[in-house]
Amino acid sequence: MPYVNIKVTGGNEAPTREQKAELIKGTTELLTRVLHKNPATTIVVIDEVEMDNWGIGGRSVTGIRKQQ
Amino acid sequence: MPYVNIKVTGGNEAPTREQKAELIKGTTELLTRVLHKNPATTIVVIDEVEMDNWGIGGRSVTGIRKQQ
Amino acid sequence: MPYVNIKVTGGNEAPTREQKAELIKGTTELLTRVLHKNPATTIVVIDEVEMDNWGIGGRSVTGIRKQQ
Amino acid sequence: MPYVNIKVTGGNEAPTREQKAELIKGTTELLTRVLHKNPATTIVVIDEVEMDNWGIGGRSVTGIRKQQ
Amino acid sequence: MPYVNIKVTGGNEAPTREQKAELIKGTTELLTRVLHKNPATTIVVIDEVEMDNWGIGGRSVTGIRKQQ
Amino acid sequence: MPYVNIKVTGGNEAPTREQKAELIKGTTELLTRVLHKNPATTIVVIDEVEMDNWGIGGRSVTGIRKQQ
Repeated sequence: MPYVNIKVTGGNEAPTREQKAELIKGTTELLTRVLHKNPATTIVVIDEVEMDNWGIGGRSVTGIRKQQ
Repeated sequence: MPYVNIKVTGGNEAPTREQKAELIKGTTELLTRVLHKNPATTIVVIDEVEMDNWGIGGRSVTGIRKQQ
Repeated sequence: MPYVNIKVTGGNEAPTREQKAELIKGTTELLTRVLHKNPATTIVVIDEVEMDNWGIGGRSVTGIRKQQ
Repeated sequence: MPYVNIKVTGGNEAPTREQKAELIKGTTELLTRVLHKNPATTIVVIDEVEMDNWGIGGRSVTGIRKQQ
Repeated sequence: MPYVNIKVTGGNEAPTREQKAELIKGTTELLTRVLHKNPATTIVVIDEVEMDNWGIGGRSVTGIRKQQ
Repeated sequence: MPYVNIKVTGGNEAPTREQKAELIKGTTELLTRVLHKNPATTIVVIDEVEMDNWGIGGRSVTGIRKQQ
């Protein structure tokens, strides 16, 4: 019954379909292994956040990537 | 004053504008009826999640729909 | 498969067990009726937020209730 | 280490890149000033929500804007 | 930089401190392995939700557990 | 109409009532100043997360604080 939400940067850093499938599988297995949760009702939602909309250290990722 | 977030699959399973209006109306009325909350400050946010990004049972909805 | 999160004030404004059961039932029925979602995998999570921790109009609910 | 999520209406009410950078900067500074949090690990995520998907007072913002 | 939120039932189904540490470690490793994310800024937040406040199939977990 | 959620560590790192009031006031003013949002319907919700339940760098804050 767990619910998991994963937020990562999107745009040209977005995960591929295969990577997203791996995240869903890996998270569900982790919850089954550690907490014996039922995978059939374990929900995983992945949000891809635009780099203008993700901030860390007081700056957007867009700003950070420009300087790198 | 309540805040409600509804997450459903998007893409070709996305709700229509009319269905979204019904969800907003229905949720707000439910909170007014059950908890006597003020509808004027009740916020409802609907997220439509791509089928690659929604997992259940350890697999993405994209993968599940293919097998159905 | 939908996921719904309902946030309301807790403390001495907290909903009772019966009211929470009604919110869960009502929200699930709404999603079944409007979007034909499967209730068996519809998850509803209710968060009760302390009145110090909920702000509206730039003030906490604790502050607002004191003046009423 | 704080995590902040800001949800605002998108579409033709969406904030500009500059406004989003200001929100990220301002929120991070607020948490540093008030709680002495480390800005280097303070994450801010901004969600722009379509006006059909945001409800207040039991109606979508799309519906509200039409009447104004 | 990812942010992960894991919601599970609490009360007498709550994970132990060791299990929560395993969830944090496992999720962070998954994101490092699959997406090459930097673990140093990967945040994981676990919410333990009271069984009255978690609904599935239109009923609270409290109600479901009673019948089992 | 914005909705803001601020998550910080709780327990013996929890913000005081006054600090929470400052966060609510500061966030609401920021949204009014930058985006001209109406403060009357701006909602801020603060979550205080137990240190066992907050992970960064693959470890819980409880584990990190012990080593400091």
